[in-house]
Amino acid sequence: MDALPSPLILHEDPVSGNCYKIRLTAALLGMALERRFYDITKGETRTGQFLAEVDANGRIPVLQAGNRFLPESNAACFYLADGSELIPADRFKRASMLRWMFFEQYQHEPNIATMRYWLHVLGEANLSDEQRGLMAMKRSGGEAALALMERHLAGRDWFVGGGCSLADIALFAYTHVAHEGGFALDGHRAIRGWIDRMRALPRFEAMER
Amino acid sequence: MDALPSPLILHEDPVSGNCYKIRLTAALLGMALERRFYDITKGETRTGQFLAEVDANGRIPVLQAGNRFLPESNAACFYLADGSELIPADRFKRASMLRWMFFEQYQHEPNIATMRYWLHVLGEANLSDEQRGLMAMKRSGGEAALALMERHLAGRDWFVGGGCSLADIALFAYTHVAHEGGFALDGHRAIRGWIDRMRALPRFEAMER
Repeated sequence: MDALPSPLILHEDPVSGNCYKIRLTAALLGMALERRFYDITKGETRTGQFLAEVDANGRIPVLQAGNRFLPESNAACFYLADGSELIPADRFKRASMLRWMFFEQYQHEPNIATMRYWLHVLGEANLSDEQRGLMAMKRSGGEAALALMERHLAGRDWFVGGGCSLADIALFAYTHVAHEGGFALDGHRAIRGWIDRMRALPRFEAMER
Repeated sequence: MDALPSPLILHEDPVSGNCYKIRLTAALLGMALERRFYDITKGETRTGQFLAEVDANGRIPVLQAGNRFLPESNAACFYLADGSELIPADRFKRASMLRWMFFEQYQHEPNIATMRYWLHVLGEANLSDEQRGLMAMKRSGGEAALALMERHLAGRDWFVGGGCSLADIALFAYTHVAHEGGFALDGHRAIRGWIDRMRALPRFEAMER
């Protein structure tokens, strides 16, 4: 496995669960990350300097490794964890881990993280009519994502294989704060047990909020 | 690398670019896939049998490997290509490949593939008011995704490194039919050159439509 350059710098906003995924991956692996902070509610990732020097897409998180930049939270987690026990050695299990990470970005984050951003970060009183018009769709999409997770975790401790992988880290980030987006986990017993197992991991680090 | 079980069965609808990604990956690798067909416009992936036996999420594509099932198109591509030249051996490049695959599922597919499905498969006259209300947002999101791709490909032949990787395959699927969703590629010279390079690859297979 190619060695990682030093230092590793996380360009992030601590309110973002996508940024937290990378911090949690590094923590579980015992890796140190430098941190640079941006406030997404103030447009600090859309400045000319950010677009030119960090990410032309104007988004965080971005993981900086030496003079190279890696956007997309789940890709950054994969980079840090490549060759570690957080990625299954078995070919099918490795692909199944990615399956849940793509599910997270396609069906979970756009619904649950967006609702949390609107209700918890921006505040319901500050939403646009367009955002309000999308809430019913986001709510049903988020509920469907949680239902699929609950069904999968019934009788399993982890999403793939016998221990925590990047699939668990990616899905934990916004699931454990889903209530901040108005998603109740009371009826999701398997998810709540899995959240407890995540929090009990050695070197676990909580999200800063 | 663990060997692949035989047969490999792709549960798919040929109209879907997500399904095509897996077929194209297999073709470029010279692998044979059995195929099972479903018509998504007729709800054939939401039947009780499909939900119980193939995918509880009611979606295609699903790659069946022996008696195991792998949803999520990009995860299925990774499974087939694991250990091949379609995945860079360099750690940073491998993560960069995943970066573009996550971008594809988060910013490209939900806009460009959805617009194509609405306009080309369902037909504009058959859309609901809710779908019509989302079109402006999907259009601007898709344009932004294409602009980022164009900028990245200016001066590069491939998304990552010196040859075709899964990042190119994932992004090719819906980009080369973007016009069917109303996205013109006339102003995207770098993207058009890259599409030509994709089509010129040995063992390239076209999408069936």
